[in-house]
Amino acid sequence: MKRTCFLLLVFISTTVFAQSENDAQVFKRIAEVVLTNGKAYENLRFLCKQVGPRLSGSPGAEKAVKETFRMMKEMGADTVYLQPCMVPRWVRGNRSGAVLVDSNNNTTLLNVCVLGNSVATGPDGIKAPVIEVRSFEQLDSLGEKNIKGKIVFYNFPMNPTYIETFRAYSEAGQFRGRGPSMAAKYGAVAVMVRSLASNIDDFPHTGATNYNDSFPKIPAIAVSTRHAEMVSARLRKGTGWKLFVRTESVMLPDVLSYNVVGEIRGTEFPNEIITVGGHLDSWDLAEGAHDDGAGCVQSMEIINVYKRLGIKPKRTIRVVMFMNEENGLRGGRKYAEIAKTENKQHIFALESDAGGFTPRAFGFSRGGDTLKRLQNWVPLFKPYGVYEFTEGGGGADIGPLRPLGTLLCGLRPDSQRYFDYHHAANDVFEAVSKRELELGALNMILLLYVIDQYGL
Amino acid sequence: MKRTCFLLLVFISTTVFAQSENDAQVFKRIAEVVLTNGKAYENLRFLCKQVGPRLSGSPGAEKAVKETFRMMKEMGADTVYLQPCMVPRWVRGNRSGAVLVDSNNNTTLLNVCVLGNSVATGPDGIKAPVIEVRSFEQLDSLGEKNIKGKIVFYNFPMNPTYIETFRAYSEAGQFRGRGPSMAAKYGAVAVMVRSLASNIDDFPHTGATNYNDSFPKIPAIAVSTRHAEMVSARLRKGTGWKLFVRTESVMLPDVLSYNVVGEIRGTEFPNEIITVGGHLDSWDLAEGAHDDGAGCVQSMEIINVYKRLGIKPKRTIRVVMFMNEENGLRGGRKYAEIAKTENKQHIFALESDAGGFTPRAFGFSRGGDTLKRLQNWVPLFKPYGVYEFTEGGGGADIGPLRPLGTLLCGLRPDSQRYFDYHHAANDVFEAVSKRELELGALNMILLLYVIDQYGL
Repeated sequence: MKRTCFLLLVFISTTVFAQSENDAQVFKRIAEVVLTNGKAYENLRFLCKQVGPRLSGSPGAEKAVKETFRMMKEMGADTVYLQPCMVPRWVRGNRSGAVLVDSNNNTTLLNVCVLGNSVATGPDGIKAPVIEVRSFEQLDSLGEKNIKGKIVFYNFPMNPTYIETFRAYSEAGQFRGRGPSMAAKYGAVAVMVRSLASNIDDFPHTGATNYNDSFPKIPAIAVSTRHAEMVSARLRKGTGWKLFVRTESVMLPDVLSYNVVGEIRGTEFPNEIITVGGHLDSWDLAEGAHDDGAGCVQSMEIINVYKRLGIKPKRTIRVVMFMNEENGLRGGRKYAEIAKTENKQHIFALESDAGGFTPRAFGFSRGGDTLKRLQNWVPLFKPYGVYEFTEGGGGADIGPLRPLGTLLCGLRPDSQRYFDYHHAANDVFEAVSKRELELGALNMILLLYVIDQYGL
Repeated sequence: MKRTCFLLLVFISTTVFAQSENDAQVFKRIAEVVLTNGKAYENLRFLCKQVGPRLSGSPGAEKAVKETFRMMKEMGADTVYLQPCMVPRWVRGNRSGAVLVDSNNNTTLLNVCVLGNSVATGPDGIKAPVIEVRSFEQLDSLGEKNIKGKIVFYNFPMNPTYIETFRAYSEAGQFRGRGPSMAAKYGAVAVMVRSLASNIDDFPHTGATNYNDSFPKIPAIAVSTRHAEMVSARLRKGTGWKLFVRTESVMLPDVLSYNVVGEIRGTEFPNEIITVGGHLDSWDLAEGAHDDGAGCVQSMEIINVYKRLGIKPKRTIRVVMFMNEENGLRGGRKYAEIAKTENKQHIFALESDAGGFTPRAFGFSRGGDTLKRLQNWVPLFKPYGVYEFTEGGGGADIGPLRPLGTLLCGLRPDSQRYFDYHHAANDVFEAVSKRELELGALNMILLLYVIDQYGL
């Protein structure tokens, strides 16, 4: 018995070793394609420069659907199809702005932008006293008597001591998301939120605000971090400050849009689905290069690589360009809704939506034995920049697959620069490094390869 | 005996644990200072925008000596002093350029720059047939009969499949370094080298060429990668191509310059020296932000942090702004020369000269038990971005300390973007991310802290 065990062990470790030798070779070939014949960077250039901003329901989003359909077709997906879904259509308008006014009516034009989903002020705008608030507790204690009729200025900076910038983003992000309704509850007439940015600079960062229907919907804008600091300093020094805010944004009726899905059919288990994607929509202020053009072109890259190398997956790989992550998540919900009705097993879903930066890790929605088994692969990933597989992760668009038991995973690139660009006018093609983008795509393909070959 | 061993083990592990708990707290406090009250980014802004290019022997380098002296003094170094050393003074001149000429005398102006240390063509320039060469073997086999009287165009790209870009740099770099003399050996009249850049773009990248005194010194220029591709394509298509090259650079007599040294005196072992530094000189085409302004301001940051936190090192910490790394290494040599005459022990030296990018690792000049012991600290570094201590590393300026038995170490930031900027006109302050720069500085201080506290 002992001898059998021993032989079995020798057999297993030899197999694992040989296998992993072989996989290292495949990894190398995949890397060579991505780094010398990759299409991610040029696809991103096209998406940024030829398509441009792609907010849900806009002509840009429509064009992005058409063009990514073409890209996946041309790269050689077995089939490419559209999943129709209705999406909100919010339009910013062109003549929005804000001015800080002192008690002598001297004015300072602020670097602001309207927050996504915000209502309009009407053509005359709103002029009201401004009050700075640094927490919801402070807002509550100020109460209606101090807030009513005023414009609330939320000035909560992203905490620079958090090494993972996403942690600081989600902490400060509540003021953009819930802030307007929380202020409206006490009678505020508008809100101005400090931009969710790591740096002090002049870019206002947009992003969705989420109204609570129990309270009046009031206009909401974001101000650049530099001007947030300036306004705060001025408010500390004197009294009588007012803000004049004008927004002319409008929420139009929902319109028809699409997820774009490209498939490479599985040869052994075609009904086991592996999903990989990013979101195709992007905010209207820039080109959506890091958010999330990068994730889209990285996801598509597996089609290019598999076709060039002649790799035929065992399971079906679905590359999905999700629509409407930014202000509704309708595409992600629609994808899961359809997945539920299919007689297929959605075993794994990977999303890239944290920017096209140098990769560091993958985060998985579940720990336990599955993750432990997957972690055995980390040494093969390390030469390509990914050095850990951690618990905790996924992505907004693939989130709705969770009830199906799908293991979710997110690419975790280095997060230090993301909030210099996120939702701001400088999120353009030039802000993306070709090599960093490609390394992200490469590691995603390696992970998909492993999971396709060996299952979970 | 067994019991004693057991108790000893319990004692040791408790101590190590308690110690490391405590160290984790110190790490956190250091991080807070660097990320909220750090001076690295503003010091870099000053060095880039108020001082600017700092090529050895230039007025910029002189100003940089004065200003970094002031910075270290103001941050609170116990003592700041200069180490005089003679440095080469090479001057580029303003009217250099190159033109590709076809057989009908049609011309195309190329994006080129003169390579550092290059001689001049004389005011009339040199016009000669151009021949493309892709390896030294090819050069040898072409020999004098094909090379004589021509301009050699070395077109060896950085290999994109190497994940560590420094590997590709050192492979391709030999054509910049030895190429001119190798070509001169066969009678070439000038050389044009493909820029050492990861990307295809329009920036020519300078850098030192090193003449071999056995052969004539011929003018040497670098051409942008995009134009290298264009020239190569044209040469393949037709015949009769010539290059017109003019360089007016000149090597003036050596001038007096300085290393700038700031010290925090050790309280217990003041004669054990820990050195940390970057090089103060930078190429004349840009602001030397990544190369190596970043390394300079990161090195200085320990003075700011230790003063703010009141940390008194056991050993003496010397922050060194090395002069003349780029075209002579005179500062590094002078520092080691003086170190040899001191009655002090130079136990450790750390250099940052790989750009102000997000940190990943430290590379050490020796492996063995010392490195193994140091690697026990890695888990404390991981939350701050450094996840491995590897064998192999150091830095050009600290290299001359090696014969003293000093353990050498280099910060290893992510290398993907470095050769987009290295030695080119776009190596400016704006190319550096504040958070990435600070994370590098932070990890350097953490390493210096550990080595100062616990020795090697």
